[in-house]
Amino acid sequence: MNITIINGPNLNMLGQREKEHYGDFSYKKLVDTVKEHAAYKSVDLDVFQSNHEGEIVSKIQTSESDCFIVNAGAYTHTSIAVRDALAAVSKPFLEVHISNVYARDRFRHSSYLSDIAEGVICGLGIYSYIAAIDYFVHKYSSV
Amino acid sequence: MNITIINGPNLNMLGQREKEHYGDFSYKKLVDTVKEHAAYKSVDLDVFQSNHEGEIVSKIQTSESDCFIVNAGAYTHTSIAVRDALAAVSKPFLEVHISNVYARDRFRHSSYLSDIAEGVICGLGIYSYIAAIDYFVHKYSSV
Amino acid sequence: MNITIINGPNLNMLGQREKEHYGDFSYKKLVDTVKEHAAYKSVDLDVFQSNHEGEIVSKIQTSESDCFIVNAGAYTHTSIAVRDALAAVSKPFLEVHISNVYARDRFRHSSYLSDIAEGVICGLGIYSYIAAIDYFVHKYSSV
Amino acid sequence: MNITIINGPNLNMLGQREKEHYGDFSYKKLVDTVKEHAAYKSVDLDVFQSNHEGEIVSKIQTSESDCFIVNAGAYTHTSIAVRDALAAVSKPFLEVHISNVYARDRFRHSSYLSDIAEGVICGLGIYSYIAAIDYFVHKYSSV
Amino acid sequence: MNITIINGPNLNMLGQREKEHYGDFSYKKLVDTVKEHAAYKSVDLDVFQSNHEGEIVSKIQTSESDCFIVNAGAYTHTSIAVRDALAAVSKPFLEVHISNVYARDRFRHSSYLSDIAEGVICGLGIYSYIAAIDYFVHKYSSV
Amino acid sequence: MNITIINGPNLNMLGQREKEHYGDFSYKKLVDTVKEHAAYKSVDLDVFQSNHEGEIVSKIQTSESDCFIVNAGAYTHTSIAVRDALAAVSKPFLEVHISNVYARDRFRHSSYLSDIAEGVICGLGIYSYIAAIDYFVHKYSSV
Amino acid sequence: MNITIINGPNLNMLGQREKEHYGDFSYKKLVDTVKEHAAYKSVDLDVFQSNHEGEIVSKIQTSESDCFIVNAGAYTHTSIAVRDALAAVSKPFLEVHISNVYARDRFRHSSYLSDIAEGVICGLGIYSYIAAIDYFVHKYSSV
Amino acid sequence: MNITIINGPNLNMLGQREKEHYGDFSYKKLVDTVKEHAAYKSVDLDVFQSNHEGEIVSKIQTSESDCFIVNAGAYTHTSIAVRDALAAVSKPFLEVHISNVYARDRFRHSSYLSDIAEGVICGLGIYSYIAAIDYFVHKYSSV
Amino acid sequence: MNITIINGPNLNMLGQREKEHYGDFSYKKLVDTVKEHAAYKSVDLDVFQSNHEGEIVSKIQTSESDCFIVNAGAYTHTSIAVRDALAAVSKPFLEVHISNVYARDRFRHSSYLSDIAEGVICGLGIYSYIAAIDYFVHKYSSV
Amino acid sequence: MNITIINGPNLNMLGQREKEHYGDFSYKKLVDTVKEHAAYKSVDLDVFQSNHEGEIVSKIQTSESDCFIVNAGAYTHTSIAVRDALAAVSKPFLEVHISNVYARDRFRHSSYLSDIAEGVICGLGIYSYIAAIDYFVHKYSSV
Amino acid sequence: MNITIINGPNLNMLGQREKEHYGDFSYKKLVDTVKEHAAYKSVDLDVFQSNHEGEIVSKIQTSESDCFIVNAGAYTHTSIAVRDALAAVSKPFLEVHISNVYARDRFRHSSYLSDIAEGVICGLGIYSYIAAIDYFVHKYSSV
Amino acid sequence: MNITIINGPNLNMLGQREKEHYGDFSYKKLVDTVKEHAAYKSVDLDVFQSNHEGEIVSKIQTSESDCFIVNAGAYTHTSIAVRDALAAVSKPFLEVHISNVYARDRFRHSSYLSDIAEGVICGLGIYSYIAAIDYFVHKYSSV
Repeated sequence: MNITIINGPNLNMLGQREKEHYGDFSYKKLVDTVKEHAAYKSVDLDVFQSNHEGEIVSKIQTSESDCFIVNAGAYTHTSIAVRDALAAVSKPFLEVHISNVYARDRFRHSSYLSDIAEGVICGLGIYSYIAAIDYFVHKYSSV
Repeated sequence: MNITIINGPNLNMLGQREKEHYGDFSYKKLVDTVKEHAAYKSVDLDVFQSNHEGEIVSKIQTSESDCFIVNAGAYTHTSIAVRDALAAVSKPFLEVHISNVYARDRFRHSSYLSDIAEGVICGLGIYSYIAAIDYFVHKYSSV
Repeated sequence: MNITIINGPNLNMLGQREKEHYGDFSYKKLVDTVKEHAAYKSVDLDVFQSNHEGEIVSKIQTSESDCFIVNAGAYTHTSIAVRDALAAVSKPFLEVHISNVYARDRFRHSSYLSDIAEGVICGLGIYSYIAAIDYFVHKYSSV
Repeated sequence: MNITIINGPNLNMLGQREKEHYGDFSYKKLVDTVKEHAAYKSVDLDVFQSNHEGEIVSKIQTSESDCFIVNAGAYTHTSIAVRDALAAVSKPFLEVHISNVYARDRFRHSSYLSDIAEGVICGLGIYSYIAAIDYFVHKYSSV
Repeated sequence: MNITIINGPNLNMLGQREKEHYGDFSYKKLVDTVKEHAAYKSVDLDVFQSNHEGEIVSKIQTSESDCFIVNAGAYTHTSIAVRDALAAVSKPFLEVHISNVYARDRFRHSSYLSDIAEGVICGLGIYSYIAAIDYFVHKYSSV
Repeated sequence: MNITIINGPNLNMLGQREKEHYGDFSYKKLVDTVKEHAAYKSVDLDVFQSNHEGEIVSKIQTSESDCFIVNAGAYTHTSIAVRDALAAVSKPFLEVHISNVYARDRFRHSSYLSDIAEGVICGLGIYSYIAAIDYFVHKYSSV
Repeated sequence: MNITIINGPNLNMLGQREKEHYGDFSYKKLVDTVKEHAAYKSVDLDVFQSNHEGEIVSKIQTSESDCFIVNAGAYTHTSIAVRDALAAVSKPFLEVHISNVYARDRFRHSSYLSDIAEGVICGLGIYSYIAAIDYFVHKYSSV
Repeated sequence: MNITIINGPNLNMLGQREKEHYGDFSYKKLVDTVKEHAAYKSVDLDVFQSNHEGEIVSKIQTSESDCFIVNAGAYTHTSIAVRDALAAVSKPFLEVHISNVYARDRFRHSSYLSDIAEGVICGLGIYSYIAAIDYFVHKYSSV
Repeated sequence: MNITIINGPNLNMLGQREKEHYGDFSYKKLVDTVKEHAAYKSVDLDVFQSNHEGEIVSKIQTSESDCFIVNAGAYTHTSIAVRDALAAVSKPFLEVHISNVYARDRFRHSSYLSDIAEGVICGLGIYSYIAAIDYFVHKYSSV
Repeated sequence: MNITIINGPNLNMLGQREKEHYGDFSYKKLVDTVKEHAAYKSVDLDVFQSNHEGEIVSKIQTSESDCFIVNAGAYTHTSIAVRDALAAVSKPFLEVHISNVYARDRFRHSSYLSDIAEGVICGLGIYSYIAAIDYFVHKYSSV
Repeated sequence: MNITIINGPNLNMLGQREKEHYGDFSYKKLVDTVKEHAAYKSVDLDVFQSNHEGEIVSKIQTSESDCFIVNAGAYTHTSIAVRDALAAVSKPFLEVHISNVYARDRFRHSSYLSDIAEGVICGLGIYSYIAAIDYFVHKYSSV
Repeated sequence: MNITIINGPNLNMLGQREKEHYGDFSYKKLVDTVKEHAAYKSVDLDVFQSNHEGEIVSKIQTSESDCFIVNAGAYTHTSIAVRDALAAVSKPFLEVHISNVYARDRFRHSSYLSDIAEGVICGLGIYSYIAAIDYFVHKYSSV
C-alpha cells in the first residue's frame, strides 16, 4: 500500500513552535517516526510538507498514492482549493492534527476538509499519524 | 491499564440503525471486537452502554478506570451534564464516533466534549475504538 | 393496526399545567379519549408516557407497533437521542402537540423530529392525537 | 358550518409539480376529494385558489365563511399581507400543507401564519385538508 | 401641489382590523379626513388603495403626482418591487404608518422603503397622513 | 399645554455639523423656530439640550411638562438609561430626528426609545419638531 | 426552438430608472434588440413583462416554450412563488440581470431562483439576454 | 414553611469537582450546612439531588413543598423539561448556582429557568443556598 | 466592614417607576431599609445614587470601602466604563437588581459587570441588597 | 482586442474532477475550444492556469491584456489578494464559473470578486467562457 | 501646531489599573511624558481627561486645537456621541490606545471612532501618544 | 537592531493602486523612505515583499531579525498560516497598514494577526512604517 502524508504550513517548525500545543519533538522526529512505523507495516510512505497552498494542491493532484493522510495545518480552516483538490482526485483520506484543534481558537473549529474526509483524528500528537496509517492498513488488509 | 468505554443512546441499535452511516455490524459485534482487541493488548476493558444521560453521568462519576473512550452519541451534541461529569473526574478521555459526524447534519458538528477531551477520532467505524485503545496503550507504555 | 403513542415529560401534568396552552382536561382524560377512539377505529393502541429521555429512547427501540404518534413535549426541542431512536427503527411517525407551539416561546419553534417525521399536527388539543390516529388508519386502509 | 379553503400559488399545478413532495394526484382530484368529504360531513365548503397574493388577501377579507383552512403555499413563508388579512378578519383558521415543509428547504421552515393560526397540519397529503375539516366539525359540534 | 397617497394591503379593513393598533375609525373615515385636510390646504390629493403588490408598483409608475405619501402596509417589510418603483420614478415620498410599527412584531421593524424615503412618520394614527401633507405643503411653499 | 423638547448630544452643533444630513440652520435657529411655532399654537414650550446622558435622564425625571418631544441624538441608539427615565415618568412622548436615520449608518437604525414612544417622526428637518408639536396640540384639543 | 423571456417588476421603466445601474436604453429598445437577435438565430421568442408576482407565476405555468430566460427583477430576491412555478414546470431556465446585482444593495445578493437555474448571467446590460439566447441555441444545436 | 432544594447533575461531586469554580467543600458539607441553617430558621427542608433530568422533572411534579430552590447544574442550560415542570406546578422558585456562571463558558450564560424564576442568586458558594432560604423566610414571614 | 452601594440611573424613581417590576416602595424606603439592616449587622454603609455614568465611575475610583454592591441599573447593560472602573480598583463586588432582569427585555439579559463580579443577585426586591450585605458579612466574618 | 483568461486551482483537473458539476471535457479541451473561438472572433487570447494564489496575483499585475475573464475557482471565495490585484490594475473583468456555484455548497455562494467585476456568468459549462469573450467583443466593437 | 489629547474614563487610574494591560506608569507620568515630548517638538499640547461622556463631547466641540489624539477608553466601544462630536467638528484625529485592544475582550474589538479617524495606533504603551504626536508634526511640517 | 519588514500581496503596486486609499507614492519610494529612516536610526533593515502566502510564511520562519513590521495586505484578513508562522517564531511584531482599514470594506476590519501582535498602526501612509521603526528603536534603547 501507498500512502502520502500532506503536511501544511508551519509543521516544519515543530519543536520550536508553541510547545504547549505541539509538544517538543522536531519535524525531523515526526518524519522519522512515521517512516519507521510505515516500514514496519510494509507501507510505502511519502511525506510531503509545504508552506504553499498551491504546492499542496499540486501535490495532491499529481501524487500516485492510494490514499492521503492530510494535516493541512492552517489551510484546514481557510483553503477551499485544498478541499477541491482532494475532491478532484477522489481518493480516501483522513484529516489529522497533532493538537486538539477543538481546544484552541474558535477559527480552528471549522474545517473545509472534514466533511469529505473518511474520518478525523486529532489531539494524539505524532500518534495521530500512526493511527491513521494503521487505519488504512487495517482497512485494506481486511478487504 | 484500565479503560472504560462509554457508549451513548442508540449505539445498542447498531446493525439495524442507518447503515449508510454506521455499517452493518451489530452492537454485540462491536463489543466483542473491542474486548478481543483489549485482551490482546492486555487492557482491562469495561464497555458500558446506556440510553440515559443520567446513567452515563453516574457511570463516569463512579468508574474506577484510568481513562475513558467516550462515544456519547446524541448526547455529544446536547449534554453539558456529561461534559461536567468528565470534567469533574478529570481523567484523560478520547471522544470517538463510528461515523464521520462532520459529513452529517449540522447539529452533529458541535460537541460539548471535544474541547476538554485529549483528542477526537471519528469516521473509522469500529476502528475508532481500536485506535483509541491503542493510543492509550501507546501513551502509557511510553511513559 | 398497531400504534404506540409516545408522550414526553410533563404531559402527565395535564389538567394542572398551564391551562391557557393545554386546556383543562386531565392526562387520564387524554388517555381514555384516544383509547376509546382507537377502539372505535379497531386500532391496537399503546399509550406511553415518561419524563425520562432515556426511557423514551428505549421505548421507541423496543416497541413492536407499526407506527408512532410522538408528542415528545420538551424533548421535541432538545433531544437528538429521541430523533436518533426514531431514525434507527425507521418506522413512520407523526409529531403531534396539544398546543400550537408556534404561538409560544421561540425555543419551541424548532424541532429535532419534524424533518424525519411523516408530518406534524399541532394546536388541535386532544384532537391532534385523534387526527393522527385517523391519518394512519386512512393511510393503511387505503393501501 | 361554513369553511373556505384558501390554496395559494402553484397548488393548481398538483399532479405535474415535484411529485416526490406532492404526490401524483391532480388539483382537480384534491378539490373533488375535499368537497366530497365536506358534503359527507354536511359542511358548506368553498375552495379557492390563486397565484396572486393580493387576490388571496381580498378573498380572506370578503369571505363569509366561519373559518379558514389555509394552504398559502409559497406565501406562507413570505407574505405578511396574508397574515394581516387573517388577523384583520380574526376568524379561526388552520394552516395546512400537503408536504412536510420541515423536511424541505430551510426557507420553508418559517411561517408568517402559524403563530396566529389555531393549529398546523402538514405532511399528510390530501389528508391534511380532511383532518382540518374534521377538526372544525368536531370542534363546533362539541360546543 | 399634487400628492398621491398609496395605501397598501388591509388598510381597507380599518375599523374592523386589530383596533388596539389601528383605532376604530373606518377606511372611509381615513379617506374623508385626509381629503378634507388636503382641500383645506389646497392640495390636489389622490388616495389609492390596493391589496396587490403589482398594482401598487404600477400606480407608482404611472401616477403624475409631485410626491407620494406611502403607507405600504405589509409590503413595507417585504416588497423590493415597491421600493424599486419608488426609486425608478425618483419623486420625493414619505413613509407613513398609522400604528407605531416599532412597538409591534419584530418583522415590522425593518422597511425596504425608509432608506430611500425623505422621512418616516409613524404611530400618529390618521394624523400621520395629515403631518405628511403638511410637510409637503410647508416644504414646497417655503421654496 | 406644556411640552418639553429634549435635544441630545451635538444638536447644539447644528449649522456646523454634517450639513448633508442636518442642513445649514443653526441650533439657535432651531430653537427660535420651534418656540415661535409653539407660541403661535399657544403651547408652553421648554427646550432643553445636553451632551450628558445623566442630565437628560434627570431632566426627564424632573420636568413637569405634559409630554415630551425627544431627539436624543446619539443616545437614541445607546442609552437604556434615557429609555428607563421615559418609562419611569410614563408620559406620552414622540421620538424625532432631523435627518432620516434609516438612510445613514446601520447603528442608527435601532432605537432604545421607539417601542415605548407614541410615534416616530424623522427626516423632516426642523419640521420634525413642528409636526410633533402639532400632533400633541391636535391630540389634546380633539379630546 | 422556443424561448420565453420573463421580465419582472419595473423593467418596463428602463430608460427612466436608475440609469447608473440600468443604462439609458428604453424597455422597447430592449424588447426590439432581443427580438431581432432571436429572429437572426431562428429562435421563436416570447417577451413577457409584468409587475404582478401572480401573473409571472401564471405565465410560467402556462407558457409552452422550451425554456425560460428569467429576469424576475425584485421578485428574484423575495418570491418563493416564482421559484415554485419554475420548479413545477421543470424546464431549463437561466437567471439574468441587466445590472451587476452583487455590486448593489446586500438584499440583492440572494436569489430564490439561482440554485434551481441552469446558470446565471448578470451585469452585461442587454447583452445578458443575448448571451442567454445564444447559450440555449448553442446547447440545443450541439445536442 | 416547606422548601425543596433541587440539585442537578454532578453536584454530588462537590469537593472533587473543579475546585477553582466550586470550592473544596464536599456535597455532604453542603447538605449539612443548608439543613442546619434551615433548622435554625424553622424551615422544613428537603434536599434532593439527581443526575437524571427525568427524576428532577418527577421530583418537581410530586414535591409538596411550598417553594423550590433550584440548582439544576448543567440542566439549567439545556433542559426545557425541567422548565416545563416548574411552570406546570407554578410554585415560586429561585435559581441558584454555587459558582458565578457568567464568569465561565458562554454556554453557561443562558438559562431555561431564569425568566420564570422569582430571582437568581449565583457565585456566593454555599451561601447562595443560605441567601435563598433566608429570602423565602423573609418573604413569607413579612406577608 | 465598609460597603458602598452604587445605585445607577432611575433608581431614585422607585415608587413611581414601573411598579410591576420594582414594587411600590420609594427610593427613600430602600435607603432606610438597607441602612437599618447594615447598622444591625455593624456594617459601615455608604449609599450612592447617580444618573451619570461618569459620576458612578468616579465614585468607584475614589470610594474607600472594602467592597461594593452594584445596581448599575441601565448602565449594567451599556457601560464598559463602569466595568473598567470596577476592574481598575479590583475590589470584590456583587451585582444586584431589584427586578428579575431575565424576565424582562432581551437587552437586559446581558451585563458588562457580571463576569467580573463575585456573584449576582436579582429579582428579590429590596432583599437583593439585604442578601448582598449578609453575604459580605458572612464572608469576612468567616475568614 | 486582447483578453487574458485566468483559471484558478484545480481547473487543470477538468475531465477527472467531479463530473456532475464540471462535465467530462478535459482542461485541454477547454483551452482549445476557447482559443478556437477567440481566433474566430479575432481576439488575441492568453489562457493562464495556476494553483497558486500568489501566481494569479502576479499574473494579473503583469498581464498587458485589455481585460480579464476570471475563473478563480476556490480562490473566488477565499482570496482578497486576487480581488486586490484586480482592483489595483483596474481593468474590466468578468467573473465566470463552469458550474452553477449557487447550486453547490453554501461557501461557494459568496465571492470576493463579483462586486468589482463588470458581470458574472456561471453554470454554462465551457460556454461561460465563450459568452464572456463574445461580451467583450460586442462591447468594444460597439463602442 | 496645536494638539488636544482626549483621555476617556479610567485613564486617570493608570498605575493602579490592570497592570498586565496598561503597565505600571501613573497617569501623571503619562501626562508629563507626552508634554515633554510635545515641548521638544514645539507642539502646543492640551491634555484632557474625563470620566464623563458628555464632558468629552463638550471638550471636542469647544477645543480650538488643530487636531485630536483620542484615547476614549471604554467610550471607544460604546459612544456614538463622541463619534458624532468628532464628526461635527471635522478635524483630523488619531485613535490611540495604550494596550492592544485586539488582544483583549471581544467587545473591545469594535470602535465607533476608527472609521472616521485618520488612523489608529494601539498597543505601544505611552509610545502610542508619542507616535501620534510625531505623525501630526511630520504631516503638517511636510505640507 | 535588526528589523524585517514583511509586505504582502499587491503592495508592489503602490503608486498605481487605488490612490484614494494608498496615496500616489510608488513601492520603490516606500522602500527608499523606510530604508533611509532605518539607516538614520542605525537599524539594520530588511524589506521583503511577496504576493505568495507561502513565501511570506517561509520568510518569517527563516528571518534572523529581532522583530517584524508586518503589512500582510490581503493576507491580514485571510491567512491563519501567516499568523501561525509569527506565533511559531514568537518574536515581537507590529501590524501596520498604509490605509485606514477600518474605513474600508467590512472584510478588512478583522485581522488574524492583531491579537498576537504587540500593537497595530494603520492609516498613517508611509509613516505607519516610520512609527513602527521608531517604536522598536525606542523600546529596545530604553531597555
